[in-house]
Amino acid sequence: MFRVSLLTGFAWLTFASVTASPQNSLMPVPSSIQDGSGRLELSAKSQVLILGGADARLHSATLRALRRLEERTGLVFARTSTGEYAQAGTPAEATLIVESSAPGAAWPTLGEDESYMLTVSSRQAVLQAPTTLGAMHGLETLLQLVQSEGGGWFVPAVALSDRPRFPWRGLMIDVCRHWLPMDVIKRNLDLMAVVKLNVLHLHLTEDQGFRIESKTFSRLHKLGSDGQYYTQDQMREIIAYAGQRGIRVVPEFDMPGHATSWVVGYPELASAPGPYQIERQWGVFDPVLDPTNPKVYELLEGFLGEMAALFPDPYLHIGGDENNGVQWSANPQIQAFIREHNLKDNAGLHAYFNRQVNEILSRHGKKLVGWDEILHPQLPAGSVVHSWRGPDGIAAATERGYPTILSNGYYIDLCHPASDHYLTDPAPSGAKLTDAQRALVLGGEATMWAEWVSPETVDSRIWPRTAAIAERLWSRAEIRDVPDMYRRLAMVSQRLEEAGAQHRRYVDPALRRLAGEGATTEDLRQLRWWVDLIEPVKEYVRGQQQPEFRQSTPLTSLADCARPDSQASREFAAMVDEFIASPKDQAAHARVAAVLAAWHVAATGLLNGWPRFSRDLAATKSLLSDFDTAVGAGDQAREALSGGRPLDLATQARFLDAADRAAKSRFAVEIPAAGALRKLIAAAGPAPK
Amino acid sequence: MFRVSLLTGFAWLTFASVTASPQNSLMPVPSSIQDGSGRLELSAKSQVLILGGADARLHSATLRALRRLEERTGLVFARTSTGEYAQAGTPAEATLIVESSAPGAAWPTLGEDESYMLTVSSRQAVLQAPTTLGAMHGLETLLQLVQSEGGGWFVPAVALSDRPRFPWRGLMIDVCRHWLPMDVIKRNLDLMAVVKLNVLHLHLTEDQGFRIESKTFSRLHKLGSDGQYYTQDQMREIIAYAGQRGIRVVPEFDMPGHATSWVVGYPELASAPGPYQIERQWGVFDPVLDPTNPKVYELLEGFLGEMAALFPDPYLHIGGDENNGVQWSANPQIQAFIREHNLKDNAGLHAYFNRQVNEILSRHGKKLVGWDEILHPQLPAGSVVHSWRGPDGIAAATERGYPTILSNGYYIDLCHPASDHYLTDPAPSGAKLTDAQRALVLGGEATMWAEWVSPETVDSRIWPRTAAIAERLWSRAEIRDVPDMYRRLAMVSQRLEEAGAQHRRYVDPALRRLAGEGATTEDLRQLRWWVDLIEPVKEYVRGQQQPEFRQSTPLTSLADCARPDSQASREFAAMVDEFIASPKDQAAHARVAAVLAAWHVAATGLLNGWPRFSRDLAATKSLLSDFDTAVGAGDQAREALSGGRPLDLATQARFLDAADRAAKSRFAVEIPAAGALRKLIAAAGPAPK
Repeated sequence: MFRVSLLTGFAWLTFASVTASPQNSLMPVPSSIQDGSGRLELSAKSQVLILGGADARLHSATLRALRRLEERTGLVFARTSTGEYAQAGTPAEATLIVESSAPGAAWPTLGEDESYMLTVSSRQAVLQAPTTLGAMHGLETLLQLVQSEGGGWFVPAVALSDRPRFPWRGLMIDVCRHWLPMDVIKRNLDLMAVVKLNVLHLHLTEDQGFRIESKTFSRLHKLGSDGQYYTQDQMREIIAYAGQRGIRVVPEFDMPGHATSWVVGYPELASAPGPYQIERQWGVFDPVLDPTNPKVYELLEGFLGEMAALFPDPYLHIGGDENNGVQWSANPQIQAFIREHNLKDNAGLHAYFNRQVNEILSRHGKKLVGWDEILHPQLPAGSVVHSWRGPDGIAAATERGYPTILSNGYYIDLCHPASDHYLTDPAPSGAKLTDAQRALVLGGEATMWAEWVSPETVDSRIWPRTAAIAERLWSRAEIRDVPDMYRRLAMVSQRLEEAGAQHRRYVDPALRRLAGEGATTEDLRQLRWWVDLIEPVKEYVRGQQQPEFRQSTPLTSLADCARPDSQASREFAAMVDEFIASPKDQAAHARVAAVLAAWHVAATGLLNGWPRFSRDLAATKSLLSDFDTAVGAGDQAREALSGGRPLDLATQARFLDAADRAAKSRFAVEIPAAGALRKLIAAAGPAPK
Repeated sequence: MFRVSLLTGFAWLTFASVTASPQNSLMPVPSSIQDGSGRLELSAKSQVLILGGADARLHSATLRALRRLEERTGLVFARTSTGEYAQAGTPAEATLIVESSAPGAAWPTLGEDESYMLTVSSRQAVLQAPTTLGAMHGLETLLQLVQSEGGGWFVPAVALSDRPRFPWRGLMIDVCRHWLPMDVIKRNLDLMAVVKLNVLHLHLTEDQGFRIESKTFSRLHKLGSDGQYYTQDQMREIIAYAGQRGIRVVPEFDMPGHATSWVVGYPELASAPGPYQIERQWGVFDPVLDPTNPKVYELLEGFLGEMAALFPDPYLHIGGDENNGVQWSANPQIQAFIREHNLKDNAGLHAYFNRQVNEILSRHGKKLVGWDEILHPQLPAGSVVHSWRGPDGIAAATERGYPTILSNGYYIDLCHPASDHYLTDPAPSGAKLTDAQRALVLGGEATMWAEWVSPETVDSRIWPRTAAIAERLWSRAEIRDVPDMYRRLAMVSQRLEEAGAQHRRYVDPALRRLAGEGATTEDLRQLRWWVDLIEPVKEYVRGQQQPEFRQSTPLTSLADCARPDSQASREFAAMVDEFIASPKDQAAHARVAAVLAAWHVAATGLLNGWPRFSRDLAATKSLLSDFDTAVGAGDQAREALSGGRPLDLATQARFLDAADRAAKSRFAVEIPAAGALRKLIAAAGPAPK
């Protein structure tokens, strides 16, 4: 809540909930925004004034924002003799006033006031917030508002008031399937801050790796990680870095399943005899901790105690998903334990385990978070249910009074377009949820599962699509205009790149490596056209098409150069729809014709260059040549449709076959534009299908 | 020297010093190379066998090399259950045998045996070296030899024996003018290893920053660095990382001049009263330590003692350059000291200071390295003279028996083409040096002074040009074929990128940021053409053209997107030379005509897009429009020359003016192709000039 005093001096502003104006460049869309008149010009003479006492976090955040502004605009703001930015002497002299009423908690906490108010007149920008957290969000908004035009840089006059819809807006990163070192995590914390995400959920243990140092049970990380883990000092560095950016760090230690890496060093804790080795493949595996073994709780008491001291956040995620029960069912002692304790079945045993773990966590002052499967009549109150299963999971958990967060629909590793995620709402207006249930929906998390990402490619699988999820979790439920989202996503993608994202810049080097030394500059230019048009396959198809891939297989193939949600394909599909709707519209026709002609030229050039490419790339030739054939078919369909001379049935059938062949994914990539070509051909027949 | 036993089994090979064959992809060129017949095919079944006892460094280096090979080729080599590469069971089964006779010194040392021998037959590659250091060089050679063709990857059969010409092959990085964090240094250590450089010289103190933690005199880094310094732990990490790659780390603490950052925290040590502030501009400044003040030696005793313990290398660089003497001359007490001690003048006082410092270093077991200026009759024996002044400095130092290293001619910050550096020899055959003098020439160092580089751009100022210097320092003196160097430089540039270099991949994001949100994809494509054609200005011209730039000014302008030694310009100049030599050669004519036509189309498109660009970029329009005019003039000259109808004098004069206007550098960039256009126009007149 804004205190009244914060509004003093700005009573002339009336706030109203208006739809984002088309000129708006903000993502997420703020709660309330009203255009003013005029603009605040920025120049090298612009000065900031920080009003917030001695809050070092606010100070650092403001200086970082000014630095990014300098890098973007080329403006150089005045410095003091000690190298700091010179602050304005009085409020009247300041171009930007940043004011925080209170520093807020030592660490960002769930439910902390994140609101802020930003008013920009032609004279001054004033950012006011009840906490430093809110002020930091406001600085990101300000950076997104800055625009250039002809002679200079400016911020349009605006009055906005902003606060998030959900308090838990997270990104989960799996650092186990593939190891992601410190710099990847830090860079992504910077990027999360750009779009106001406030929870980094680190998935730290898995069958494929135990990624955090344990001082009391050191065989966990020493034998479970191939040496690829964060030391506790490094984790403290990550937590501090996140805290400086207003981001909580919630650790996850997945148990009792997904536990292979735990039992490499401690095989006696598994539910079947060892020895065990770190898992190198993808899937759901049998190794599971033995809930009937007191030594398991001894280890958890020690290990979770260490982790509770390391991570300041009160929430601790224990996973709990995909325990397949194979080892439990096969172990007579465990089955006897279930009968003796009236636990009914494996699910009952799992619930029993969770209660023991929850007691350990409670002793260490932590609240439990777990995936859907933890929901059981005896789940301790206050535990947070993290739903990977979806609306039913949300409904079930909130019905029983458990707070919940959603990840179903936010599985960014599955390579779906941003629009799919964007339209997924943790508490949609149509859902049959009571007000009490709605209040228990804390928000959601994008999940970056790491079977198919490396330090090089991971940014491209997270960004920019996660910005659309960030907007869903921050902005009002009724903000659902997909084309406008994509328009702004392109802008925020640029802001993310400026903040360090590697999501676009990794592609050219990766293509040069993939194409090999025979490729010419022109080959590479055309290959770039090609990879901008294709996408990695979706869902779990990659595992089917590349079953030989292991943890150690380099992710340097064509599918790794391709990125989800191809903008070029999306734009072409829109053009085709427009043309089919009005085949006599000459402009619509000309647009489609121009694209198809350009594609054919590019494809022909590229196919001529194919013999120069490395073996791995050369193998993928059929994909492009099938596409080129489909482009030719589409072009004839385009001509037929435009001229009002429908294709005969046999020709149409042949053309549809060509489109279908091009649409067939292989080498773990697919061509979404083949679908639009099919539509065009279908519309050009004697009886449009 | 190779032990005879190493040659057992390879007696069929005869080594001979042959010029690198055109197919050769190696940089630096090895001492001796002989093509074999056939090739060694690589496959996922290829296995390595490491013979070198328990040398962890050899083991790690081999595994890193295999990983790079996997990333490049897409091949996946077999792993053991613990995730390591599976080694071949017997030598006969191995595709690659890596054998080191001895691990070598704990830290790489000057003069250590770096030789290796690599023989590749169609059956097996065998790398043998007397030390791990040599074996690591051999692994880099092997990686450069790997080629692809049609169906697969292979190493051509070859027998090579290799050792460096000079033992001191360095890269100096100034981390003071602009701060360069850990990841930049580590990445550049990886890149140095690719081209067999073996000394990282870190310039750690300057007027603009004191970049190393001192525990005994903590005001040095606390007040002298804006918080931007390496902790001693971080420096140990750098040293260990370098050591793993066979690279020595030689620290430099510049004294008594270039000392502003020293005296911010300890003003009483300067030769004039303080207070002092960190210098924010570029140039030579007055602050200098007071050699007559005993407190100076107390501080140096403590500080250098700490540094001597931190850095394992026996050499320690004390700078000693560009002491302008202003403070000394103005201080009557200091002048009196000179008279009392018969030191003659300021130079004598400087020599006195060096002797005191050398005594301190000797006590701590270190040998002194310093720039030319330290050379003085009383310079202690064994000191190394580092010449920034050139051949005369080398001659003078070696004449008096001092070992010496060259940096004159290797100032990569001045943005000269690689060919200039390449043809600079530390001990050229024509130099009047005795054999004894030649033996004292240890090698050289490329110097990356950091007034005009940031973490984003620094790789592009170091690479790939420094690879040409690395070859000069490693390969035989007679290897001087510039076109062949450029051919191989393009290949090694790709290898450097694969090893992590940012020298090419930073350009597109930097251009997107510079152009602003108004730029279209097509604009950016054409801008890329443009920046690939221009170069940053050379020598110290940038400081004259952008005098307002301070330490804090973002390096994000057009000059920062441009890179030295434009390949496109170089290729055009060669085409023009060829055409002028044979104006009737239709092919030569057609090549020039095609380039000029393409340039004009691109320039026109770009000039149309200009209004969409950000202010900073928009300001540079005159550069392109002058160039476009010169291209038009050049095209008419091309036509005239080809048709045997010379331009009339007035037209030619007008055209020459256009070329001269285009050749005029501004905004800190220049267009080298303007020179080639001028040549073309000059050749097309009635009386070729």
